[in-house]
Amino acid sequence: MGGLSEERPGSVTPGWALELLREGRVARLATADAAGQPLVVPVCYAWDGHHCYSAVDAKPKRTRQLRRLRNIVQNPHVSLVVDHYEEEWSRLRYVILEGRAEVLTEGSELAAAVALLTAKYPQYQVLGLPAEPATVIKLIPERILPWRWG
Amino acid sequence: MGGLSEERPGSVTPGWALELLREGRVARLATADAAGQPLVVPVCYAWDGHHCYSAVDAKPKRTRQLRRLRNIVQNPHVSLVVDHYEEEWSRLRYVILEGRAEVLTEGSELAAAVALLTAKYPQYQVLGLPAEPATVIKLIPERILPWRWG
Repeated sequence: MGGLSEERPGSVTPGWALELLREGRVARLATADAAGQPLVVPVCYAWDGHHCYSAVDAKPKRTRQLRRLRNIVQNPHVSLVVDHYEEEWSRLRYVILEGRAEVLTEGSELAAAVALLTAKYPQYQVLGLPAEPATVIKLIPERILPWRWG
Repeated sequence: MGGLSEERPGSVTPGWALELLREGRVARLATADAAGQPLVVPVCYAWDGHHCYSAVDAKPKRTRQLRRLRNIVQNPHVSLVVDHYEEEWSRLRYVILEGRAEVLTEGSELAAAVALLTAKYPQYQVLGLPAEPATVIKLIPERILPWRWG
């Protein structure tokens, strides 16, 4: 798809892009290891207007030592996109966050993030997010890059 | 979401993951620059069973010198995910391709990729993909990482 705003960051984020961040149900998070190998994974997330939070949650997995977490320790630079796809391409839109990530494993900010995620996703109430100890990735955006057709 | 197969690549790719690659309408592509800053963007793509192709197409944009292309020149390592999201999380699934990217700007492989993309997306027939000169990103997978619930 396009990429107009990749080239001209820094303007005020439009309302439709903030709505997409607020309302989107799934985002895709890109991390990269110290050698620059990217990894992109789908994530559930919550946006509080300033930061984006994503849990390493209770869904089946083998280990909490996920590559995305190892990558963030090696290299905190991340990118996340929330987009809307449909076959009518004139309605395509997306918003990219670019910034740094931190891994939260304790404290009041972790508790607030878990509360946000649980409020947004009723699934977590059933599945019991997060298994203890909770692990949440916090994304601190340095740039917000919105794009839509036209 | 989960990440089981992030930790155990190398097994035979299951049929459902190949179907997802074949049938998905949108993927998300992560590149990273020489400094390791990732960029993730939604892309239309076509999978021919071996490689994944994505066009820098005719949708509105300011320049073909997109960051994703600059990144690939600096650092050919990329990651791409095709996923299925729904609120019933037991049906979540995704497949990640990890590998190298090349930028095609001429030749028979470019023509074949454009034909694949145009066959998959009737929108390109209306919009006239791609504007000349065509530019297509070719992803050569080195690992295929499928994940689904359970």
